[in-house]
Amino acid sequence: MSNNLLATNPYKGTRDFYPGEMAVRNWFFSRMKEVVARYGYEEYNGPILESFDLYAAKSGQELVNEQIYHFMDRGDRKLAIRPEMTPTVARMVAARLGELTFPLRWFSIANLMRYERPQKGRLREHWQLNVDIFGESDIRADAEIVSIIADLMLSFGAEESMFKIKINNRKFFNDVLTSVLDVRGEDVQAISKAVDKRAKVPEEAYRKWLLESGITDENINRLDTIFGSSLEQISQMLGDGSEGARELTDLFTLLKEAGLDRYVEFDFSIVRGLDYYTGTVFEVYDTSPGNRRALFGGGRYDNLIGLFKNAEISGVGFGFGDVTFQNFLETHGLVPGHLDKSAGVMIALFDETPYAEYLKLAAELRENDIPATIYMGRGSKLKKQLSFAGKKMFPLVILAGPDEIAGNKVMIKQMAAREQLTVDRSKFIDKIKQLLAQTSSES
Amino acid sequence: MSNNLLATNPYKGTRDFYPGEMAVRNWFFSRMKEVVARYGYEEYNGPILESFDLYAAKSGQELVNEQIYHFMDRGDRKLAIRPEMTPTVARMVAARLGELTFPLRWFSIANLMRYERPQKGRLREHWQLNVDIFGESDIRADAEIVSIIADLMLSFGAEESMFKIKINNRKFFNDVLTSVLDVRGEDVQAISKAVDKRAKVPEEAYRKWLLESGITDENINRLDTIFGSSLEQISQMLGDGSEGARELTDLFTLLKEAGLDRYVEFDFSIVRGLDYYTGTVFEVYDTSPGNRRALFGGGRYDNLIGLFKNAEISGVGFGFGDVTFQNFLETHGLVPGHLDKSAGVMIALFDETPYAEYLKLAAELRENDIPATIYMGRGSKLKKQLSFAGKKMFPLVILAGPDEIAGNKVMIKQMAAREQLTVDRSKFIDKIKQLLAQTSSES
Repeated sequence: MSNNLLATNPYKGTRDFYPGEMAVRNWFFSRMKEVVARYGYEEYNGPILESFDLYAAKSGQELVNEQIYHFMDRGDRKLAIRPEMTPTVARMVAARLGELTFPLRWFSIANLMRYERPQKGRLREHWQLNVDIFGESDIRADAEIVSIIADLMLSFGAEESMFKIKINNRKFFNDVLTSVLDVRGEDVQAISKAVDKRAKVPEEAYRKWLLESGITDENINRLDTIFGSSLEQISQMLGDGSEGARELTDLFTLLKEAGLDRYVEFDFSIVRGLDYYTGTVFEVYDTSPGNRRALFGGGRYDNLIGLFKNAEISGVGFGFGDVTFQNFLETHGLVPGHLDKSAGVMIALFDETPYAEYLKLAAELRENDIPATIYMGRGSKLKKQLSFAGKKMFPLVILAGPDEIAGNKVMIKQMAAREQLTVDRSKFIDKIKQLLAQTSSES
Repeated sequence: MSNNLLATNPYKGTRDFYPGEMAVRNWFFSRMKEVVARYGYEEYNGPILESFDLYAAKSGQELVNEQIYHFMDRGDRKLAIRPEMTPTVARMVAARLGELTFPLRWFSIANLMRYERPQKGRLREHWQLNVDIFGESDIRADAEIVSIIADLMLSFGAEESMFKIKINNRKFFNDVLTSVLDVRGEDVQAISKAVDKRAKVPEEAYRKWLLESGITDENINRLDTIFGSSLEQISQMLGDGSEGARELTDLFTLLKEAGLDRYVEFDFSIVRGLDYYTGTVFEVYDTSPGNRRALFGGGRYDNLIGLFKNAEISGVGFGFGDVTFQNFLETHGLVPGHLDKSAGVMIALFDETPYAEYLKLAAELRENDIPATIYMGRGSKLKKQLSFAGKKMFPLVILAGPDEIAGNKVMIKQMAAREQLTVDRSKFIDKIKQLLAQTSSES
């Protein structure tokens, strides 16, 4: 057995969630669920495997060629482990077009796999909250999505100074490129890729990329100026005809009405990497200088349902991943320290007392929704049992030896205060509830 | 676009969870979490991909050769999509042997993939609750696991008559085969496979399988008699030396002390398909005649940690899948009907009133933890808006037109009762809380 031991590390770029880490993940996804539930969003979920074709059409070359895990199953189907959730939800919406009442407000929490070079903020497996509205083209839907993002950030204790939601619009971007910078329509996609990567590649590479995409040296400089310009300034270059300009103006008006203007700003360099966006696009940034990448983002996509059905159902939404967000929370000191503390009671064992007595105590506690753990290991000294309780961070230990059992009493030890008290068996549930409530309010 | 439309069905043997189905899944996994939390179990989770080697050693040939999804990644690693959770958790425990305080009481809820022929109760992707104790060889741990299973079943409203936990022991099974039926030690594994499949294959095939595994025709008949015998009867055939017999006797004594004898029974034909079990094994059966397969099962495995580290850490636990369990709940009418009802409030729009007023109302509701959905679609008649609210099953609709806004009032429409009432703006949160509490207690 000693020879061929298997490695204990998880697969590269994936994580094991031990109870401490799982408590953090549960904490932040349950908080996210609370926020989206307040907006009336309903949860959905889909399979981890999808047909490869779902991504081939619209997800963008980088994702499809380099990042998707794909393989053939035993029935010769080309499958992919989902690298993102949007194509799955688009497929689900398309499948029940006639039965669903639009608009849909849907969310999911799911794991996704991408073949990435693992680095800070990027892993191969991450968990993501996806939030979308389907079947509503009104810009009010875009505003609601931005409003949810702001509420999500605030619900974790993030302050106005810690993050910024940067917003642009693909139609607006296209109009500026074609009308102001004389780019041909078919070159817009390539240029938007270059702009999307601008902050991540050297200046030289970025300029070369743009030149190859059919934009002149002079217009590259003009583009640089435009990146620093306001929505009003750029809109003036376009004249009145730009639908994208109108959408952006309406969106910022709505966000001001909702009291969210503090959290948002226009940024012409936001385009998003995925090919399917067609209108509003946005990214959320950590304002701390150490973290220059977008935390997450999203936007409006008009044509995804069209991959499956001859129908026009527009969607707008975002995906909010746990890896980058956990970095954000840690950077700003927003992860509470007490998440993995045991919440309940440990019952110590006394050799002289029948085990059945402890089973009864435990059952009574559990019926009252109090987590109860019976110590295991026969004949262990009390000191050893209390040391175990300390390591496992049980706030309370029940000591019911022969004297207590005979007298119909229970002794409760408060681990932090190192105090113990004896109560009547008939009152011990209430006493424990009271002590646990004290403990949790102190932490 | 009309030509190459993609299919909308999910991959064969997997499911889309629309909000209605997701509400059921959330309902039963959150209930399961409540039950295991009462026993002091902590949640963990691991990656969807693992090294293929994790399963090759101990999971059994059928699973490894026929059921695992595996492929090579771009770095030439042979990977598997996890078909079960136990090897993952064994790897995690092995990785932190020195840091963890044993015994561990751990659970997880995770999706698993197996390449099965989809049929009732079997899909390719299912979700599973896994519950395990690590580092405790005392039979009290086995009893605690059985106790959790009984509590899980009861917590869903299952009655004593609806299910039975059938228990055996691999050591006991081995002792009987080798001592009573003269089977050679190396043939026990093959015979246990045949016994595990006994109810699923024709009688002929089963007998042939046993004969090939080195058991005589006469002893096959004797085995049949043993299947109908009690624990006491079989134990007597063995004499005093069987550790397995002692473990079973102790386990049933403990279960009686815990008041669980009504839910359990000894069954010598229970062996479990996976190779790694070494002691107690059990399966939970639906007693309704339409469903003869085990709902789920588990047992004790002594050597899994040994795949990774030279250490002896025993585990005992079970995996509880959603597909078979949902069949059980539906068969017995135990799924509540109101799970996918909208919980909150819809805010109707009046053209004459600024949208910002509705944003304010929504924000106030959400701050008070009341789910609030603002109707979308400009200029919709009230009738259309109420029809939407009806289809989406909102219990309450807020009607705040120009008169209400001017008078600092809010009109609340109760959809089921078709009644409406007008309250002061300052009191509408309390009124809505009260009405929502009524609605949920009625459903």
